Amino acid sequence: MTPDALSSWVDGPARRAIVEFVERVADDGRSTPVPADERVATFDNDGTLWCEKPMPIQLDFVLRRLAEMAEADPALRDRQPWKAALERDFAWLSAVVAEHYAGDDRNVKVMAAGILAGYAGMSVEEFEARSEAFLRSARHPTLARGYLECAYRPMVELLGYLAANGFANYIASGGGRDFVRPVTQELYGVPRERVIGSTSELAYTSDDRGGTITHTATPGYLDDGPEKPVRIWSRTGRRPLLAAGNANGDIPMLDFTQHDDKPFLRLLVVHDDPEREFEYMSGAERALERAEAAGWTVVSIKNDWLTVF
Amino acid sequence: MTPDALSSWVDGPARRAIVEFVERVADDGRSTPVPADERVATFDNDGTLWCEKPMPIQLDFVLRRLAEMAEADPALRDRQPWKAALERDFAWLSAVVAEHYAGDDRNVKVMAAGILAGYAGMSVEEFEARSEAFLRSARHPTLARGYLECAYRPMVELLGYLAANGFANYIASGGGRDFVRPVTQELYGVPRERVIGSTSELAYTSDDRGGTITHTATPGYLDDGPEKPVRIWSRTGRRPLLAAGNANGDIPMLDFTQHDDKPFLRLLVVHDDPEREFEYMSGAERALERAEAAGWTVVSIKNDWLTVF
Repeated sequence: MTPDALSSWVDGPARRAIVEFVERVADDGRSTPVPADERVATFDNDGTLWCEKPMPIQLDFVLRRLAEMAEADPALRDRQPWKAALERDFAWLSAVVAEHYAGDDRNVKVMAAGILAGYAGMSVEEFEARSEAFLRSARHPTLARGYLECAYRPMVELLGYLAANGFANYIASGGGRDFVRPVTQELYGVPRERVIGSTSELAYTSDDRGGTITHTATPGYLDDGPEKPVRIWSRTGRRPLLAAGNANGDIPMLDFTQHDDKPFLRLLVVHDDPEREFEYMSGAERALERAEAAGWTVVSIKNDWLTVF
Repeated sequence: MTPDALSSWVDGPARRAIVEFVERVADDGRSTPVPADERVATFDNDGTLWCEKPMPIQLDFVLRRLAEMAEADPALRDRQPWKAALERDFAWLSAVVAEHYAGDDRNVKVMAAGILAGYAGMSVEEFEARSEAFLRSARHPTLARGYLECAYRPMVELLGYLAANGFANYIASGGGRDFVRPVTQELYGVPRERVIGSTSELAYTSDDRGGTITHTATPGYLDDGPEKPVRIWSRTGRRPLLAAGNANGDIPMLDFTQHDDKPFLRLLVVHDDPEREFEYMSGAERALERAEAAGWTVVSIKNDWLTVF
């Protein structure tokens, strides 16, 4: 496929770095192509493939679930995080995030326990059905579009361009693996077996319908920071040739995308477009420093994308 | 592909069940084909795809590592499991297995701690290099062949027949995932990203070479029993159409291979051929009972395979 596929990209340094990289990997007649089975690309999801402001899409899903629980059980209404969910108390939720960045995770644990309780005992099929129904119906609070229209068009084009050049694209999301699996094929052309992400521990119970796998209240792992390379290795058995992220939690994944003997490319999406999307640097400060120090390719939404959605 | 691919199979009930199943899934003109992306097949490895007697191939690998450690550190020589490894004390090792089946896992934990210590701090690349070197050089103790020639030819044919009919074949091994990854493409046509298996916890450390992932002394999970369906779901996001196993630890995976609206097939390999391979039922008693009760397809090595290797 020709780079015409990247029609939403400005013909600038980011687009040129992508095209040059893909041509070196595939076959530009000047270098040895990389064997197709080694062409692995990994993408963060929230803030890299789709919009994560004013809150991650999954947080909206979770808050609705917590509010539903509090409606059904009055005893929960005065307890966090159900109280904040029921009252749409975004100040409390924002404070949890601010505390987290300041190194205080006490309320993160309160929040996590609530989320885990929200799905404990639910079968993976029911969880996916709820997630899919939410993603197909709920709308973004400020962008006047449904959540399924919140994927960044230039990144979707990049996924297609890579796939057409023999890459296997994986999603390495800090968010829930099973939350996005129902829509990744349609949204990104990424099949469900290539979705890596966070999860609670799952449990298998035998029954006469072929057994049931359920979510439990036990945390599994958070696919963020140093866990991302570990999960990418565990899933693929390979070090990626290309990785794209947008936040501090993506630094290890981007660092891990390095080879002595093959081309590699690290992309950092920077949210600098308050007109068309959002402008924020919180949680990405170290990633930007690292991009400058290590020569990663910075993708400016404002300057590198002709269209955002 | 035609069933001529199954030329090492006797034209008996097992082969006929396989062909009938694949034709229903693919397109026999009588039923609706199953979409290609839903054609997932999962295979246990030890005793299902390759020989596991007189001891699992990985146990030979591990014992050599433990003996190497004991050679280097005299303090280990009087401690289990290093003592047994150094002295090739198969009586102790057999007792551990017998105790395990009797419900006593104290020595299993001693064994596991030794194995974990054997690779703690080793990079995943070095672990794979050691595993691959072992698998390419070591020989089976009684069958007069190298370990890489210990795969069952009929099962390799089955993997090829399924792949030719659009199936994605996964290995769901109770053994180590990273132990077999270096050879599964060559041996089974199964790429490394489709190998599911046991692992210790891995850790990522950043460095200027793109970071290093190492094995740790912390157990991860044992991909056996009820963990198999959980790991299959986690990796693939799907319930298999076909599963093959040979032991009690495969029961949940085989039970999990059941659908209301699609064809499915459960295969249980039975080791009943002391002339050409081995005859044993220990550790498979409940699986055989379940096969009879649930209508699984029993594959008799003695009666269903023209050639074993």
